Amino acid sequence: MLERLRTVLIGTSHPGNIGGVARAMHNMGLADLALVAPRGEIITQDSISRASGADHLLHSARVSPTLDEAVADCTFVVGASARSRTLPWPMLSPRELAHRLPEECRQDNARVALVFGREDSGLTNDELHRCHAHVHIPTNTDFSSLNLAAAVQVIAYECRVAWLEQQAATGGDDNASANDEHLVSHADLERYFAHLEQTLTAIEFHDPDKPRQLMARLRRLYMRARPEQIELNILRGILTATDKAATDKTIQPPR
Amino acid sequence: MLERLRTVLIGTSHPGNIGGVARAMHNMGLADLALVAPRGEIITQDSISRASGADHLLHSARVSPTLDEAVADCTFVVGASARSRTLPWPMLSPRELAHRLPEECRQDNARVALVFGREDSGLTNDELHRCHAHVHIPTNTDFSSLNLAAAVQVIAYECRVAWLEQQAATGGDDNASANDEHLVSHADLERYFAHLEQTLTAIEFHDPDKPRQLMARLRRLYMRARPEQIELNILRGILTATDKAATDKTIQPPR
Repeated sequence: MLERLRTVLIGTSHPGNIGGVARAMHNMGLADLALVAPRGEIITQDSISRASGADHLLHSARVSPTLDEAVADCTFVVGASARSRTLPWPMLSPRELAHRLPEECRQDNARVALVFGREDSGLTNDELHRCHAHVHIPTNTDFSSLNLAAAVQVIAYECRVAWLEQQAATGGDDNASANDEHLVSHADLERYFAHLEQTLTAIEFHDPDKPRQLMARLRRLYMRARPEQIELNILRGILTATDKAATDKTIQPPR
Repeated sequence: MLERLRTVLIGTSHPGNIGGVARAMHNMGLADLALVAPRGEIITQDSISRASGADHLLHSARVSPTLDEAVADCTFVVGASARSRTLPWPMLSPRELAHRLPEECRQDNARVALVFGREDSGLTNDELHRCHAHVHIPTNTDFSSLNLAAAVQVIAYECRVAWLEQQAATGGDDNASANDEHLVSHADLERYFAHLEQTLTAIEFHDPDKPRQLMARLRRLYMRARPEQIELNILRGILTATDKAATDKTIQPPR
């Protein structure tokens, strides 16, 4: 299970924090580190020092320009967030997240992304809307900003405890109840959302200049639904059919 | 409950780590920081920077030369430890510790110490033997050394979650079921152990030059028993009576 978890850091400013995250991950048995557009060097004296022996995670970290690339193959994407934004999203506590992981990691192609934002400003709304769920670490309301490595430490710790509980329950077989249902990857889902927005714009249901929260609400709906591959194929098919109808103008809108 | 928790750092080398601990504590709503024989300055650029707004905890931290002084008034002392030592001690997971706290914090004079050792070598056996229980953070067996602030973060997080659960269950009244049973403080218990060792030496049951693990085993026994004040008074009374008997030699040992 732990090998299916990817830690994704977006726009990290301080190399030391990346090192601290590597140490926290390795301490808890996590190994997959992805960096999105880091705002500084990755391998520095400070990051090596803070990694304190876990610097192989720094060397093996994959760097991507966008969140979409970093989590393209992920089947469940969770973003660390302060309390709810304008549009409330499914919100998990770290423990609730951890308790979901054995189920989320059951499938052969399962891959879970744990996404952490910038030291100063966290994740943007756009990034948060690319997540299936948000996770909120319950902090002192008067002093809620955790150090990045500390936030990763808490989440990774909960993941490890859930994994240890699973090991104890299943005798070590992570995939005890795996079946062959195929989960939808982030990239597939994003292609769908892009197609959806394009189609909704084409049919003038959606005005990108006055977006209100239409796409965000649709994202939230579909992400909550966790479509399977075959269902997503159907949804895409509907859009294609809609596009065709809108272009051909063979179907008249109702008066 | 959280206000009854004291974080005790022994022999910390790096001021930055003390700052990181202060931040982790304040994030989780803990405020009582005690430093035992720190091996460097407390207020430095690095510690203020890592505290990131929680530096009032650095300024209010009490500094003591010994663990005994730092936890003298504490009624439950828990030491962070790697896996068990020569003589196994009651070992709690962070979650088990957290689940015990509402009960441990029930009494009016309750005060819980969470004790963390040196960055390089942790707690000594002598320090560990001054604890009622040890807490072990479940880490990767290949890479078990947590950063000090990360260790405090995990324990403080579990304490906060337990407190939030208690708040939810009792409607916010921390002391819903308090009674007036009086807990024994660390200082009282240490006075007892000192007296016990002196008496056992006097009666030649114990040879301080060949201590084996006698005192450690006795400590473990009594700490597990959690004597109440009245019981401790009785134990002290027994020692006093023993001393008197040994000095007077009025009581002959059995042949």
